[in-house]
Amino acid sequence: MIYLDNAATTAPDGEALARAVQFTEQNYLNPSALYGGEVSAALASARESLLSKIADPAQFALVFTSGGTEADNQAIQTCGRRNIVLSAGEHAAVYEAGVRLKNGGTELRLAPLQRDGSVKADALLSLVDEKTSLVSVVHVNNETGVVNDIFSLAREVKKKNPRCVFHSDGVQAFGKLPVRLSPDVDLYSVSAHKIGGLKGVGALYKRKNFALQPLLCGGGQEGNLRSGTENVLGILDFAFAAEKKFASLEADLARLKELRALLSDALDKSVYTILSPENGSPYILTVSARGLRGEILQRLTMARGAIVGTGSACSSKKPHSRVIEACGYGKDVLDGVLRLSFSPHTTREEVLLAAQALNGSAHELKKRIG
Amino acid sequence: MIYLDNAATTAPDGEALARAVQFTEQNYLNPSALYGGEVSAALASARESLLSKIADPAQFALVFTSGGTEADNQAIQTCGRRNIVLSAGEHAAVYEAGVRLKNGGTELRLAPLQRDGSVKADALLSLVDEKTSLVSVVHVNNETGVVNDIFSLAREVKKKNPRCVFHSDGVQAFGKLPVRLSPDVDLYSVSAHKIGGLKGVGALYKRKNFALQPLLCGGGQEGNLRSGTENVLGILDFAFAAEKKFASLEADLARLKELRALLSDALDKSVYTILSPENGSPYILTVSARGLRGEILQRLTMARGAIVGTGSACSSKKPHSRVIEACGYGKDVLDGVLRLSFSPHTTREEVLLAAQALNGSAHELKKRIG
Repeated sequence: MIYLDNAATTAPDGEALARAVQFTEQNYLNPSALYGGEVSAALASARESLLSKIADPAQFALVFTSGGTEADNQAIQTCGRRNIVLSAGEHAAVYEAGVRLKNGGTELRLAPLQRDGSVKADALLSLVDEKTSLVSVVHVNNETGVVNDIFSLAREVKKKNPRCVFHSDGVQAFGKLPVRLSPDVDLYSVSAHKIGGLKGVGALYKRKNFALQPLLCGGGQEGNLRSGTENVLGILDFAFAAEKKFASLEADLARLKELRALLSDALDKSVYTILSPENGSPYILTVSARGLRGEILQRLTMARGAIVGTGSACSSKKPHSRVIEACGYGKDVLDGVLRLSFSPHTTREEVLLAAQALNGSAHELKKRIG
Repeated sequence: MIYLDNAATTAPDGEALARAVQFTEQNYLNPSALYGGEVSAALASARESLLSKIADPAQFALVFTSGGTEADNQAIQTCGRRNIVLSAGEHAAVYEAGVRLKNGGTELRLAPLQRDGSVKADALLSLVDEKTSLVSVVHVNNETGVVNDIFSLAREVKKKNPRCVFHSDGVQAFGKLPVRLSPDVDLYSVSAHKIGGLKGVGALYKRKNFALQPLLCGGGQEGNLRSGTENVLGILDFAFAAEKKFASLEADLARLKELRALLSDALDKSVYTILSPENGSPYILTVSARGLRGEILQRLTMARGAIVGTGSACSSKKPHSRVIEACGYGKDVLDGVLRLSFSPHTTREEVLLAAQALNGSAHELKKRIG
């Protein structure tokens, strides 16, 4: 089976997992215990390794969480005051955390999107005022792959309101695009299972001097910023997987650019409209089979040997995508959205076979519905 | 090294871990994806298995979390309104979540403890009024091992205020004592890594008709009660480890009752005062070397080959225990608290050697400080 939904989750790296399991079996002590030095040293080294991948350890720190969703929730929920500004292209974890704040009395302001899923910078900035406590803009849009220029946005936001917190969900950028956090970004969420780590692990990068508040309270782990006994296996595995992923980041990027173009070219344009921008993340190609239904195409394509996504797996229970709708597309496009997403292990052959399966499925479905 | 801090964390079950790792390597798809049926079926079966261990699946449901701390935080933080009542013996995850609510304007009422760490039932009930939204009482006190009669307390609380939510932290009871949730208990928190599972996994049992609110919002996983891609490896491992632990629950209990009595008898009573009640959990024996310092004793005992706890590992950064203080003990007892806690794998020989190490360390320290 060809797997082209790597933005939903990707295969765990076997070597990283084996190393983490081995450590866990030999060192299971509680890292918070006074005698738990070996385990807490391993956590410290994982933290340092992950931190340096995208940030200057002199300027940034890192809080381990149970995943991207918790990192997003901590950022959004603990920073809501009078009003917050989110792009309309945010992942559900950011958007729904914003809705929770709204239900508690915070004004929720949504900045509109361009056709490609990127936020309209001027519109976003115009929503920021002296009472805005938080702005959140996704780095790589998980549904279209478009890359927001979060560093420039963060700088402009800070110019307008220096006390406003700037957060970005970096789940689809981390380990895939070269990222170097600037001090205008206060908080940045990442997830392990999108880059070969395990589900249930993530982190919230924070500017060192930023006074983050905990969402989970208790024993005071993670410098009192995230209580709960640390997921040692998951955290070590995350660091091991990231080591490998970052080592080949640039090479993967170049290869996937070609593969994405190859797939894009091989799709029958009488059926498929490309929604992803040319300069988006090479890991994601989002298309729409206008007038057809994505879920049915997904099933037919699976029968032909390829797994593709229907947009965010995290929102698979929703009728259609809030984000693609915010790009300005109508029902015919929304219904037919498919997300094709790659891993560094995806091959040319797989991509060409997937294109065949997608083309065949679309023609089969068209014929069926007359 | 003899390990007697199993209440802090215990060794992961190797067989359960191997099974969970094998599944994860072969089935890594996102359980929320439309094609993720195999993974979501495995999660469903883990859920069913864990649910039936302590509850009637017709009356209760279960939400997977990142551990006991998150389960406690979800219960406390989402149920706080005008006032809440906690026992003074709560784990930090409950207590600090209560403090967070207090900072947000909720009145926090603490019910006093008996000498053994159990909550004073009358005092607790007298704090409950028509505006109390939540009562939380730990099932097995993690610092003294005393067992609160949560079912009788829950019944009384409901009699006084039927709309009041009753939560119990069952982390030190689950898989150790026979538990059958009554419908007076709305919410019950458990953790995987105390019974041979992995750190970073837990669950919140909920009465089926109870309208629990999510703490982590997003993609709508766990029936919209806890968003975030499920920690598949950790959840399956939890269910596998629980299967084994529950199979030997009664036999373990009988054996540990004897071992605990053996250790208690073997400790030099000119140094050690037993704080745990006779009828407490056989998994925990808390003692105090009056006038000596627990951390130093811990270090000396470790040099003699035995790891013991100094109370809750989760609060190891605090100067002394809030809970033992609430039992009514003075500074001399508080300073010298040691928690000795067992696993089903603890042997008679280990217990006797540990007693020797503890006695030797105390005499060494006494001599040293003159």
